[in-house]
Amino acid sequence: MVRVGVSGYGVIGQRLADGVALQEDMKLIGVANPSPSLSVRAMKERGMPYDLFLVDDKRKSEFIDYDIPFSGSFTNLINNVDVMLDATPAGVGAKNKVLYEKAGIKAIFQGGEKNTIADTFFHGYANYEKGIGAKYLKLTSCNTTGLIRAVDCLDKEYGVKRVTITIIRRVADPGDYHRGLTNALKMEKAPSHQVIDLMTIMPHIDATGILVNTPVTHGHIITILVHSDNVKITKSMALDAFRKHERIRIVSIDEGFLGNASLFRYARDLCNPRGDMYEIALWEDSIVESGDDIMFAINIPQESVTIPETIDGIRACMNMQPDSKTATRMTNKYLKIGKHLYAKGKNNQ
Amino acid sequence: MVRVGVSGYGVIGQRLADGVALQEDMKLIGVANPSPSLSVRAMKERGMPYDLFLVDDKRKSEFIDYDIPFSGSFTNLINNVDVMLDATPAGVGAKNKVLYEKAGIKAIFQGGEKNTIADTFFHGYANYEKGIGAKYLKLTSCNTTGLIRAVDCLDKEYGVKRVTITIIRRVADPGDYHRGLTNALKMEKAPSHQVIDLMTIMPHIDATGILVNTPVTHGHIITILVHSDNVKITKSMALDAFRKHERIRIVSIDEGFLGNASLFRYARDLCNPRGDMYEIALWEDSIVESGDDIMFAINIPQESVTIPETIDGIRACMNMQPDSKTATRMTNKYLKIGKHLYAKGKNNQ
Amino acid sequence: MVRVGVSGYGVIGQRLADGVALQEDMKLIGVANPSPSLSVRAMKERGMPYDLFLVDDKRKSEFIDYDIPFSGSFTNLINNVDVMLDATPAGVGAKNKVLYEKAGIKAIFQGGEKNTIADTFFHGYANYEKGIGAKYLKLTSCNTTGLIRAVDCLDKEYGVKRVTITIIRRVADPGDYHRGLTNALKMEKAPSHQVIDLMTIMPHIDATGILVNTPVTHGHIITILVHSDNVKITKSMALDAFRKHERIRIVSIDEGFLGNASLFRYARDLCNPRGDMYEIALWEDSIVESGDDIMFAINIPQESVTIPETIDGIRACMNMQPDSKTATRMTNKYLKIGKHLYAKGKNNQ
Amino acid sequence: MVRVGVSGYGVIGQRLADGVALQEDMKLIGVANPSPSLSVRAMKERGMPYDLFLVDDKRKSEFIDYDIPFSGSFTNLINNVDVMLDATPAGVGAKNKVLYEKAGIKAIFQGGEKNTIADTFFHGYANYEKGIGAKYLKLTSCNTTGLIRAVDCLDKEYGVKRVTITIIRRVADPGDYHRGLTNALKMEKAPSHQVIDLMTIMPHIDATGILVNTPVTHGHIITILVHSDNVKITKSMALDAFRKHERIRIVSIDEGFLGNASLFRYARDLCNPRGDMYEIALWEDSIVESGDDIMFAINIPQESVTIPETIDGIRACMNMQPDSKTATRMTNKYLKIGKHLYAKGKNNQ
Repeated sequence: MVRVGVSGYGVIGQRLADGVALQEDMKLIGVANPSPSLSVRAMKERGMPYDLFLVDDKRKSEFIDYDIPFSGSFTNLINNVDVMLDATPAGVGAKNKVLYEKAGIKAIFQGGEKNTIADTFFHGYANYEKGIGAKYLKLTSCNTTGLIRAVDCLDKEYGVKRVTITIIRRVADPGDYHRGLTNALKMEKAPSHQVIDLMTIMPHIDATGILVNTPVTHGHIITILVHSDNVKITKSMALDAFRKHERIRIVSIDEGFLGNASLFRYARDLCNPRGDMYEIALWEDSIVESGDDIMFAINIPQESVTIPETIDGIRACMNMQPDSKTATRMTNKYLKIGKHLYAKGKNNQ
Repeated sequence: MVRVGVSGYGVIGQRLADGVALQEDMKLIGVANPSPSLSVRAMKERGMPYDLFLVDDKRKSEFIDYDIPFSGSFTNLINNVDVMLDATPAGVGAKNKVLYEKAGIKAIFQGGEKNTIADTFFHGYANYEKGIGAKYLKLTSCNTTGLIRAVDCLDKEYGVKRVTITIIRRVADPGDYHRGLTNALKMEKAPSHQVIDLMTIMPHIDATGILVNTPVTHGHIITILVHSDNVKITKSMALDAFRKHERIRIVSIDEGFLGNASLFRYARDLCNPRGDMYEIALWEDSIVESGDDIMFAINIPQESVTIPETIDGIRACMNMQPDSKTATRMTNKYLKIGKHLYAKGKNNQ
Repeated sequence: MVRVGVSGYGVIGQRLADGVALQEDMKLIGVANPSPSLSVRAMKERGMPYDLFLVDDKRKSEFIDYDIPFSGSFTNLINNVDVMLDATPAGVGAKNKVLYEKAGIKAIFQGGEKNTIADTFFHGYANYEKGIGAKYLKLTSCNTTGLIRAVDCLDKEYGVKRVTITIIRRVADPGDYHRGLTNALKMEKAPSHQVIDLMTIMPHIDATGILVNTPVTHGHIITILVHSDNVKITKSMALDAFRKHERIRIVSIDEGFLGNASLFRYARDLCNPRGDMYEIALWEDSIVESGDDIMFAINIPQESVTIPETIDGIRACMNMQPDSKTATRMTNKYLKIGKHLYAKGKNNQ
Repeated sequence: MVRVGVSGYGVIGQRLADGVALQEDMKLIGVANPSPSLSVRAMKERGMPYDLFLVDDKRKSEFIDYDIPFSGSFTNLINNVDVMLDATPAGVGAKNKVLYEKAGIKAIFQGGEKNTIADTFFHGYANYEKGIGAKYLKLTSCNTTGLIRAVDCLDKEYGVKRVTITIIRRVADPGDYHRGLTNALKMEKAPSHQVIDLMTIMPHIDATGILVNTPVTHGHIITILVHSDNVKITKSMALDAFRKHERIRIVSIDEGFLGNASLFRYARDLCNPRGDMYEIALWEDSIVESGDDIMFAINIPQESVTIPETIDGIRACMNMQPDSKTATRMTNKYLKIGKHLYAKGKNNQ
């Protein structure tokens, strides 16, 4: 069984740990964190579901103060895994890479690191093959991960040539106090990095777009205009493709999904751990045709959307599955993604 | 075993169902809802953990459209329970009461109904005895429930004579679109209904205060000034009392609980279903002495705070326990409330 | 001199009154309002710059209570004007129209009324000629007014065939408590009414788009993708056209305009009455080319943007100027719009 | 005539300049700023109502780029004034003080500086006499200024012994992007600095309280509980005192002032420059009696509230008036504060 470690037990790290723990063909060896943060203390109150390793020996007493048990040092963790999921703050991953190299283990870095940290900038659907056997992968960021899912879905079915987007970005996660925005929309210079990233992963596509930050915490919304050189993609053609995708959930305003907060509430009502959702949502009643192009809006649950693609990354770099189709199917099965597809109902006749 | 039904599967109703299902000395017969709302559809996607009963036979086809199984009518549910937890929108409970009376069952109504609907306006700690054997109880609303927990805790220990509060009220729940507020603080006429309610439950106390609505969704914050005629309550005396209370969680800014969003995040990180927390939080570093009085701030998780006291209500009206102490202890045990008390750590030496 | 009245002294009505009062070739006879609202009381505290007429004789005592002087009835106002600017809540304008017809006066209605209320759905730049001599005009709403300004600017210069937009809509005005949104993005069904309205005014253009509501109060932001059949519009070509437009203000993130709140603050710092700005802003560093199309983002100051085009409407329906060019120039001169064009500086070399 | 300069043309500086310019017994020599900020460029677009002095000679070319005229250096300004109002960011004032000392001029610093920067920590009503002839004054911050106004009003009339407050603090000004908060209430350790400051200015009072930050931009709201040893202050006694105060505006929910955003809108509707209001507002329907104490809520317009008290400071340190009464009356007259007092109407019979 592939042995996996997680470095950094923050918003992403703890979700990676939970996700890996569900994979029956992987073994989560443990998680590492420098301090007894709120999330670490919550892990303790949960009863220590994972072994914890200390990044910084000098801070051991802080863990002892909170009576938090630990299983060893970061080095111990590194020496006991085949691949490390590095979910540390931007910049720290680059320092950790030296340790991973020394130990001869593979690593998957999150979107905050520079592309040059890895052999391959990776997405589980759009370029799985490039990640096979790679030593270091870097995952796309949350917006890019969700964006590529939707674009790749149409690309595989009809061929996509050009993508033009507007990202309405949630500015902070629930619990953040350091990067909020109050009663303001904040522009970023165009084009946004997400379209650059999309073109890196899918070089046959021409992409551009504008990003605007909004003062909310529940999910980015992206409007996407897609052009194919091959065919005019109609609304029903687009829906046909999206409906088959396990990591895309078709919703509608008419059925009560009024915005990003409806999806957050729905995921909580599902009793998903942390109120998370792995799927992006796509509003059926947002789809419109513009000349020969097709436009639609998706919702990105920023805290959890990259988890499945990261686990796909483990499958790729550890040579567990030969292609995206079999790998994503395995990841989805263990994460219980795609159940909504097989639910009968108005949207799934 | 006491058979319990839940009417209304909204924000409160679904949490009541989950809470009752955990009580080993009660049996949840099922939940009733008029429409296949988002929450009902989420219940279906969860795999129908509870039997569902239809409130309105004419809307049966809507449930069939979504392929949601149901077990009978509201009347069927009523006829199979000893006590109904009515979590329907304000005003509907009054209509339902006619049906409960006809069926000869007991009922516990939520804070939105008028006090006259019930024999007793109830709080599990402050007036449990009044609820014993009662036919109809009405629970305090979320703010009042949390407020009374804190005041009653000091009252039992030291005697409380006067309470003066400022409620900083979260204006909407996550997922609400109909009652939001954008970039505004909204006043309500003083005194707010919460202090009137407190005085109804605890008539020996004189209470007043001001309520201000704020545009956030995660938890009310109340500042409370307490006066005892018997003794000057010092900070350490207050902490002594609060630390023993199972439904009060002492937190501090120093330890990372910066505000209401920290508590919401912490509850999600605990992997509590829906990211809920039953305890109110009380900031240790908010406690100050003002003359002979003591002041402090608490956080009220508005969606879940009333669940334990409602279950206490079942214990009271069904004569399951003779007093508040044994009843709340039983409720807490099954809801796993109070584990934080026994966790060693900075706050619990 | 053309005699003008304003009906409804709310967010729009008071700005119309101020705007008309500045036109040296028009005379503001007065404003009418049904109640002594906050805005009317502010007018009194300002020293009654305008004559006030009472819409509802039965509410006269309310005005007397506040010691607010009035000059007569709504009928008096109607009988003394050539044209009425109707800024009453949606639906009231239709009732008022009966009175205007009886009195034989012209009227200009705001965007909330149905199109059928008027002979012409009007925009000062895009279809001024259609409004000449008309009896009843209806103005475009705030988003549509700003959107058309930008599109018409490119259309006049290069010809526009197709427009695809994303509207990031501010959900409430400062001072609104009844239509807020808290921590949520709220979708509307696509296509949004603004693109339908654009096509009504500019029938040679094919337009579509998606609208998302955001919890802010300072200015809508629209991203606009424009296609011309004649020419590939480059960034510099677009800037050339925009820079000449008096009602478009080119700004940039680099120069400190970080978002919609910067523009609101800038207008306040200009000491414009009410902190208003008549111009839309267009971010230079948002302009990107997408294939043969051009994309950019504009900011719409929702409370004041329609004022100049409404005054253009007076010029049209009262036959004051023969074409858009001369009419808008006159309106701009009296409103002091366009000074930013002639300011030397980084953006205006 | 007393010659005044303003250092720092930000949120406070530009309002100080406007306020001083209205004083017929003072002469505003000019304002100094280090960079051609948005506010400076707005001043230019307004037509340079004030002479501008450059703080940093090295940045001269930046002003020239924007074609902004200037009248000399900071030293020139310092050498031409009797007193400088220093509204630079916290910490800069301490450096500037060296220059003021050298030039032998007086200075008034804003709330961000340390108390030790000045001879006297000053409030125009509560301790005017201490500022008479002083060389260096430091003004109270916005919350403290408004809080003291209300407390001093009751203190002068009835004697105040103890004050207990809850500050619901707006977290950012309109146009701020760097210190926002999104969907969170953020606690600060109690007691908040405002009560410490109050006790420094009014040492006979015992004060404490809790501060909670909220994600809004329009006005802090403070609830204040006041105890007098002399007398039980009733609601009508409190109103009697407040109604006579020129810098306190009595409002009510019933009359349409629903919250802090109503006051912001009202000031804009008054066409006050920048939509500012100098008065604090006090909600009549928030006043409640708690035992022998009196409680009420006030609104603090954070950007403009300190302007009048700062101008009072000029009067004190320049020996212009012998006491608070005559000085504040003069300031109010030139700032046109208090007109609302003499308006007949529901609240002022």
